[in-house]
Amino acid sequence: MKIMLTISYDGTAYSGWQVQPNADTVQERIEQAIFKVTGESVRVTGSGRTDSGVHALGQTAHFSVEKDTIPAERYAKALNAYLPPDIRVLSSQTVSDGFDACRGAKQKTYKYSCYISDIELPLKERYAVRMDNGLDIEKMKKGALVFIGTHDFKGFCSTGSSIKTTERTIYALNIDFNGLDLTFSITGNGFLYNMVRIIVGTLVKLGENKCRIEDIEEMLVSGNRELGGKTLPAKGLCLESVIYK
Amino acid sequence: MKIMLTISYDGTAYSGWQVQPNADTVQERIEQAIFKVTGESVRVTGSGRTDSGVHALGQTAHFSVEKDTIPAERYAKALNAYLPPDIRVLSSQTVSDGFDACRGAKQKTYKYSCYISDIELPLKERYAVRMDNGLDIEKMKKGALVFIGTHDFKGFCSTGSSIKTTERTIYALNIDFNGLDLTFSITGNGFLYNMVRIIVGTLVKLGENKCRIEDIEEMLVSGNRELGGKTLPAKGLCLESVIYK
Repeated sequence: MKIMLTISYDGTAYSGWQVQPNADTVQERIEQAIFKVTGESVRVTGSGRTDSGVHALGQTAHFSVEKDTIPAERYAKALNAYLPPDIRVLSSQTVSDGFDACRGAKQKTYKYSCYISDIELPLKERYAVRMDNGLDIEKMKKGALVFIGTHDFKGFCSTGSSIKTTERTIYALNIDFNGLDLTFSITGNGFLYNMVRIIVGTLVKLGENKCRIEDIEEMLVSGNRELGGKTLPAKGLCLESVIYK
Repeated sequence: MKIMLTISYDGTAYSGWQVQPNADTVQERIEQAIFKVTGESVRVTGSGRTDSGVHALGQTAHFSVEKDTIPAERYAKALNAYLPPDIRVLSSQTVSDGFDACRGAKQKTYKYSCYISDIELPLKERYAVRMDNGLDIEKMKKGALVFIGTHDFKGFCSTGSSIKTTERTIYALNIDFNGLDLTFSITGNGFLYNMVRIIVGTLVKLGENKCRIEDIEEMLVSGNRELGGKTLPAKGLCLESVIYK
């Protein structure tokens, strides 16, 4: 039986999604919980890795079990009994044998959260990154449009991942500002290592008038990471949802 | 020189505002920071205590210093250099010798944050309390109106505080629900020990159809704490603002 999970976690305490030696990871915690419930040692496949400190509202994953210990829909509650409070399985369901949470993912939406204040706000700091006053939000919204479409994002990723192609498609990149919270929502068919954090960092650089929209266009052509903004901190990033066909 | 501070803190790690032996408190952290900046051991007077685990967006306090070490407006930044990241002074200003952050407070606004979900949401859990589906929000909004005005709230406080009178005036009690977040905003001239957490707990009991609006009216007359709801957890409570004349 193949089961798909939708999972939310506060990533603060974890070394990211993927199992690593001598590190506390979300994937390992879930695999341990499945073992407690079923007695089976299984490998859980996520829709993708999230980095150390990155949060998720709707990470997805699949795994297969030999025995029908409990119905698929009951896994959410059963696993939560063995998971720490900062990880929760929101739902569980059966999927066909052909389903793959990673290769089958068609769209992912990430949210990057900032807030504008001269002083750190303790009640914002856990899930958002402080930015100084004076960002040109309208210019950032114009700059965001440059990313929409299919581009080679090799200038917008960190090295360290082994991938076949650096071409990705961005379907939407919305910037919302309510006078305090500055939120970036970005939907694409997939994201390279640190890609969201570099795109947002580059838009912030633009909003600080430290680069021009033409520079972003050039980065997308030249693939030159040097022109872009900083890789922003992990704590502002949250995997919102993953969509399958 | 007398100085007023506006302070925000994430109360999770603290045993509340007020200095106590063998406990980490916000007041003591601020007094320690003032000592680092000025070399003077002063007593800081807050607008009131907040309990262990309660948060603040706009707590206020005053203190007096002998020497004019730095201008009043510079204290915010100077103190923040010695405060942990979960406590921040948002602003500092001189006030007249007659100003008293506690006795001079005319209005306080607290926010109590809940969310409606069958499963705990890790990204909500730090600052809000999960409630089951099925609360009758419209009934709760009607029940909230019963609290408006001047009443004897002795049935809506925990014992343990030494106070002259249990009469308080509630100016506003608004309930907002966006389909996920259920937020209570309550403004009054002052609040008894645990009063906000018991009022919200009683409104939740009402929303669960475990008591009637008439029972709340009776509690306000009889002062019988037994009829009310639970004292809800500290983590959902935040002191939003304090208003002076």
